[in-house]
Amino acid sequence: MATSQQVKLLGFPGSPFVARAELALNLKGVKYEYIQESLTNKSDLLLKSNPVHKKVPVLLHNNKPVCESLVIVEYVDETWTGHPILPSDPYHRALSHFWSRFIEDKVLPAVFKAAWNPNKQEREKGAEEAREALEILDKELKVNGKFFHGDSVGFLDIAALIIFYWVPIIQEASEFNVYSGDKYPNIGKWGQEVLNDPDVKGVLPPRDVLLSFFKALFQSIVDSK
Amino acid sequence: MATSQQVKLLGFPGSPFVARAELALNLKGVKYEYIQESLTNKSDLLLKSNPVHKKVPVLLHNNKPVCESLVIVEYVDETWTGHPILPSDPYHRALSHFWSRFIEDKVLPAVFKAAWNPNKQEREKGAEEAREALEILDKELKVNGKFFHGDSVGFLDIAALIIFYWVPIIQEASEFNVYSGDKYPNIGKWGQEVLNDPDVKGVLPPRDVLLSFFKALFQSIVDSK
Repeated sequence: MATSQQVKLLGFPGSPFVARAELALNLKGVKYEYIQESLTNKSDLLLKSNPVHKKVPVLLHNNKPVCESLVIVEYVDETWTGHPILPSDPYHRALSHFWSRFIEDKVLPAVFKAAWNPNKQEREKGAEEAREALEILDKELKVNGKFFHGDSVGFLDIAALIIFYWVPIIQEASEFNVYSGDKYPNIGKWGQEVLNDPDVKGVLPPRDVLLSFFKALFQSIVDSK
Repeated sequence: MATSQQVKLLGFPGSPFVARAELALNLKGVKYEYIQESLTNKSDLLLKSNPVHKKVPVLLHNNKPVCESLVIVEYVDETWTGHPILPSDPYHRALSHFWSRFIEDKVLPAVFKAAWNPNKQEREKGAEEAREALEILDKELKVNGKFFHGDSVGFLDIAALIIFYWVPIIQEASEFNVYSGDKYPNIGKWGQEVLNDPDVKGVLPPRDVLLSFFKALFQSIVDSK
């Protein structure tokens, strides 16, 4: 287990993926230096640390880079003691892995297509795909406690936070409608618990700033047509 | 750790994803019952066990279902002792997770698009994307031993096996050309080691059977246009 360490996080304000890494580090009580990246002028450090995707977040632990938000969350869980993030039971770990893949592979690509595809028909198709994925999530995922697994924030809560907080803002900005807590009662109830957690609140960017950012992004897509 | 257990694997012959689960179980020496599924008439057991994706492989461990091939591999690693599949060091585990996501998210969708998209232009685009992804893999992935991590078959070797064995057969059947060991020397060398491993050999379906299957599949796509 790590003790005195140099920990840096390359991030960008407002990113739901960076928030995952921040939340994991905060839950473990890890002190780190936050290095803000520019999306239009990426630093040499970012390009060198994540040559494959060239994206934030990147965790630098004693100069070793770890990339991809959920890989970082799992790395943080395995490297520092304290608040457990993944369940210890292999079956519950498998469920966390399975559903996090579902969010990454099915929910998010559909939401992003609904929000930012330059073609209006494709955006509508994306919204439909997102609704289908969210219906499956609402029907099949079993929340086993206040949070996905037990009474403290864990891996899948961190993975799903983007649905609870960012998706409602993105859909308001991009004028589509796929998610509300009322429409999906099981996810809705779970999301409320997650959003009420003090550690989670600590990594949420201000709603109005995100809304303005996503509105401008959506407008630039509509205008470019 | 598990001792006397009921283990079943729902599979389909020739599937690279089922082969991953089989290889993990074999490496651990787990005895299991193989239940063959029909792709055109899926069993109630499959539909009940994997209601989200309705796909093989599904591992049933004392009737509890675990779905998605790499989730199964990790579950098997954590449930049974013996041959370690994921490295124990968190940083090397993170590298295994990172690169397995790259294979799942970048390499395979591009290869499948190159092979089976009904539109010829899309197939050519898929081939180009696959070549780009394989170039990154060849350039950036560092093999740390005979296999990806050390001298015995591990998680990323299992994840990448589809590239070494299935992709050359699929591209021959679908008349495109993205992968050869010569073109990508680092992956090529690694792939040779993986394919020469006796446990790996034990789960490889016969080449000629796969080639006929994929040729028929490709022909049905071309004919349907």
